[in-house]
Amino acid sequence: MALKTLGAKAAAALDKELMSTGAFSIDQLMELAGLSVSQAVFRVHPINKGRRVLVAVGPGNNGGDGLVAARHLRHYGYHPTIYYPKRSKNELYQRLAKQLEDLDVPFVDDFPQALSSTDHVIDAIFGFSFSGEVREPFPAVINALAETKVPVTSVDAPSSWNIEEGPPKTGVGSNFHPNFLVSLTAPKPLVKHFKGRHFIGGRFVTPAIAAKYDFDVPEYEGLDQVVEVGPSGQKL
Amino acid sequence: MALKTLGAKAAAALDKELMSTGAFSIDQLMELAGLSVSQAVFRVHPINKGRRVLVAVGPGNNGGDGLVAARHLRHYGYHPTIYYPKRSKNELYQRLAKQLEDLDVPFVDDFPQALSSTDHVIDAIFGFSFSGEVREPFPAVINALAETKVPVTSVDAPSSWNIEEGPPKTGVGSNFHPNFLVSLTAPKPLVKHFKGRHFIGGRFVTPAIAAKYDFDVPEYEGLDQVVEVGPSGQKL
Repeated sequence: MALKTLGAKAAAALDKELMSTGAFSIDQLMELAGLSVSQAVFRVHPINKGRRVLVAVGPGNNGGDGLVAARHLRHYGYHPTIYYPKRSKNELYQRLAKQLEDLDVPFVDDFPQALSSTDHVIDAIFGFSFSGEVREPFPAVINALAETKVPVTSVDAPSSWNIEEGPPKTGVGSNFHPNFLVSLTAPKPLVKHFKGRHFIGGRFVTPAIAAKYDFDVPEYEGLDQVVEVGPSGQKL
Repeated sequence: MALKTLGAKAAAALDKELMSTGAFSIDQLMELAGLSVSQAVFRVHPINKGRRVLVAVGPGNNGGDGLVAARHLRHYGYHPTIYYPKRSKNELYQRLAKQLEDLDVPFVDDFPQALSSTDHVIDAIFGFSFSGEVREPFPAVINALAETKVPVTSVDAPSSWNIEEGPPKTGVGSNFHPNFLVSLTAPKPLVKHFKGRHFIGGRFVTPAIAAKYDFDVPEYEGLDQVVEVGPSGQKL
């Protein structure tokens, strides 16, 4: 039995529905998405393996999830650093960045330098709405993530991958294979090309929504906001 | 060493500061507050002790925290029921209620009936901004909570208690002693009159804010959004 997935258009429609008839605000959804990511990182990278976590933040919602995850990780005792080269004027992202500044989380401009002195990386550059070309300054960032020995956790999608087709055949991202992936609400079709440890997060989906969009709500345990799944979606 | 507490005026100022210079939205703070409450209930009332949780929801922010807690409890596998007699026209609370309706969580009008068929009660009626008289229809509700054998968890304050002085000397609430209390951000002065198990929640306070308002950020463990503390604030 293959894992049920949610294509790019369906994921966009689901997001829109959650925030209209579903009555969620983006603040709420992003808080819960970022919380899920922080819990996955806590699980795959226990704090005794090194506290330094570099978060590569893109200009959109995927980046916002990364900013929220960084705040929770700071509260767990990690030492996040933020690379956020294309700051959005969006008021929510500005607030999420301010919350990190108030926790003395550093924002840095030199990605190679930051990558050489971290224990883990969160790739929160692009999510399910990505398509087309990787724009500056992110090609070099993704090339560095493809080559680094530091473990990488991608949020919702390995950045640069086509949401339906997976890694590009050539060029930026063609050799990018992150160690960990946190799919938000449901895996995207690209997951069939992903060989690392796979988590699903976003414990707010109703059974009715999952049925409408034809995916499965995974069996979360206890208070967990993420669940690790195998290649066919079975709980591990 | 006594537990450092936050008086009613200071708690209001802190809330205001979190949402202005602190850059948090009320959606975000309420999500994290309600998540804390849900985790405390999960800890004091494991699901095998009965899944039914009645949430008594007041008209303000304390009620909003209760609505969020109910949603998380539903996702953990509990069966919440909501008593919400004074529905606010506030758009956020309306959205939080809709999120519960979409999970088929029942809203009921008959409190005594609901109380007779539940395993746990969350008192989310009044919080730190309460003062003066308990208004209708809540006197009978608080009297019922004072008399019930069902375990009760209060959110931030046992409803009807004076935030500084504790239980009223006479009348409604004078004999109300909930089993569990979840103080949000910091305990209120009333806590010196509370004899049950005490939790602190709200894992978003910065060290700078805690220093400014002269309270201690408790030592949370792992991913926990609550920590149980003893009479002097020591971790249990």
